[in-house]
Amino acid sequence: MDAHQIITCEIPMRWGDMDAYGHINNVQVVRLLEEARIHAFGPPGGTAALGQDPPVPLFSSVAAGVQALVVEHRIRYTATLDYRNLPLKIRVWIANPGPASLDIAYRIHDPHTDRLCVKAQTTLAFVEGVSGSLLRITPEQKRQVAPYVGPSLFP
Amino acid sequence: MDAHQIITCEIPMRWGDMDAYGHINNVQVVRLLEEARIHAFGPPGGTAALGQDPPVPLFSSVAAGVQALVVEHRIRYTATLDYRNLPLKIRVWIANPGPASLDIAYRIHDPHTDRLCVKAQTTLAFVEGVSGSLLRITPEQKRQVAPYVGPSLFP
Amino acid sequence: MDAHQIITCEIPMRWGDMDAYGHINNVQVVRLLEEARIHAFGPPGGTAALGQDPPVPLFSSVAAGVQALVVEHRIRYTATLDYRNLPLKIRVWIANPGPASLDIAYRIHDPHTDRLCVKAQTTLAFVEGVSGSLLRITPEQKRQVAPYVGPSLFP
Amino acid sequence: MDAHQIITCEIPMRWGDMDAYGHINNVQVVRLLEEARIHAFGPPGGTAALGQDPPVPLFSSVAAGVQALVVEHRIRYTATLDYRNLPLKIRVWIANPGPASLDIAYRIHDPHTDRLCVKAQTTLAFVEGVSGSLLRITPEQKRQVAPYVGPSLFP
Repeated sequence: MDAHQIITCEIPMRWGDMDAYGHINNVQVVRLLEEARIHAFGPPGGTAALGQDPPVPLFSSVAAGVQALVVEHRIRYTATLDYRNLPLKIRVWIANPGPASLDIAYRIHDPHTDRLCVKAQTTLAFVEGVSGSLLRITPEQKRQVAPYVGPSLFP
Repeated sequence: MDAHQIITCEIPMRWGDMDAYGHINNVQVVRLLEEARIHAFGPPGGTAALGQDPPVPLFSSVAAGVQALVVEHRIRYTATLDYRNLPLKIRVWIANPGPASLDIAYRIHDPHTDRLCVKAQTTLAFVEGVSGSLLRITPEQKRQVAPYVGPSLFP
Repeated sequence: MDAHQIITCEIPMRWGDMDAYGHINNVQVVRLLEEARIHAFGPPGGTAALGQDPPVPLFSSVAAGVQALVVEHRIRYTATLDYRNLPLKIRVWIANPGPASLDIAYRIHDPHTDRLCVKAQTTLAFVEGVSGSLLRITPEQKRQVAPYVGPSLFP
Repeated sequence: MDAHQIITCEIPMRWGDMDAYGHINNVQVVRLLEEARIHAFGPPGGTAALGQDPPVPLFSSVAAGVQALVVEHRIRYTATLDYRNLPLKIRVWIANPGPASLDIAYRIHDPHTDRLCVKAQTTLAFVEGVSGSLLRITPEQKRQVAPYVGPSLFP
């Protein structure tokens, strides 16, 4: 139905992501979303050593002094996520591209049953690290994300 | 203006809560919110050894088989949070009390400058741990939280 | 030279494993060792949902009430470990098999340069979860680990 | 018997430090040791915003480009550590002061029963961050730690 592309990230859970309830802890779900972002868009420029090219180099192509900052998270937990020694497949796309921010949308399904467990969206902005001043989304960044722009999960 | 009570939780950051950007990592902010919840409402019944009474025993008074589950988080990062070896003062209150869920609202201010850094809200529900069936908020729980019911931070 | 087998575990680092120094944090190295153990020997019985068979089901085959507990860690950091979006190859084997404990030995090399970054050893024991009483290594467990018994990294 | 001084650090556990076994996870114990070090010796120079003076400014007084790096950890878990909403009292002192490294020794007792749960020692060195070259312990650092030098917990 929807013509946009989705990036599917294989992200292993860790046994230590579970809490005393014996499920993946809600905070560690946010860690897994962070890792999906990095998988899809690359480690932010200046924070990682040489590795592989990400599907879309949105983060890895920023200048070393620029930081990709989380402005807002919205995370809905629709089912408890069980630990399995199977990688999660986290679906990632872009929503609400704006002049100075964009959203990353995610869906996490159970890797064995395929049940939807988490729907989430992160609003990101790019800032100049030292001054903290907000940067506009560049034409090059718009081109990078254009094929992946899809629906927003939240109103 | 607002007559509701607020619970102020002293929660130390940890040096390891910082990430490669040199700020408190956005995921660890969610960990700090979890700890503020536990500080205010007690460790969930059955998950902790003997300690001190929390300000409001909303979690610590649930039966051992009952779990307090996060249904949704909404977290707005309004300023980067710097690590200091001073405890955060996290303000916590209740919003949107409903028949089977309630929200916990939080504000995190910088412990030195008092600048607002994070506004957040967590929707919680109580479920029977084995069956997973949703439980209604009990009259006793309503009484416990009544003095702390205040405005919602998000529409 | 050495006839024992080694289990090589592919464990991705996470961007969030870095600390404010911009390297993989020493504590998160211990998390990575935990995950290598789980990868090699399976999630401890009763703590995970259905997944894949591990190379050696030492942990996953214990009864649900039995816990594999860390008695001692010894971890030598020989070089700082840089974050890369490439999985670590962590080499794992068994050392010092005893009547009621055994050691897991590990070597972590940089996934790009192959430089040795960490040598570590964990002493594990199995205990009955409720009583806490120590269990003897069973003949079946001895058979499971026999091909992987190699040298101790520490005196 | 022993005339050296000990620094007692009040470090709260977090509910999220527990794992699926319902105890404080062994990896998070290492995080708690890190936090005790920071409490005792201050946040490493250049990695924190303004806070309070630590008991001994061993880390906070290093120049911004210098890093305090963990060379080795040795951690013995003598009893499982239960989560309580009471701060741990972690005892910290110095062992094995050398020309270019020193050990930090720790003892963690249960905050309710006072049972010894963890004995640990960390070998630290100071390196110049960019070049990675090892620095000698300065006369000033020797003076700072002299009153706290006590026995080594491990041979």
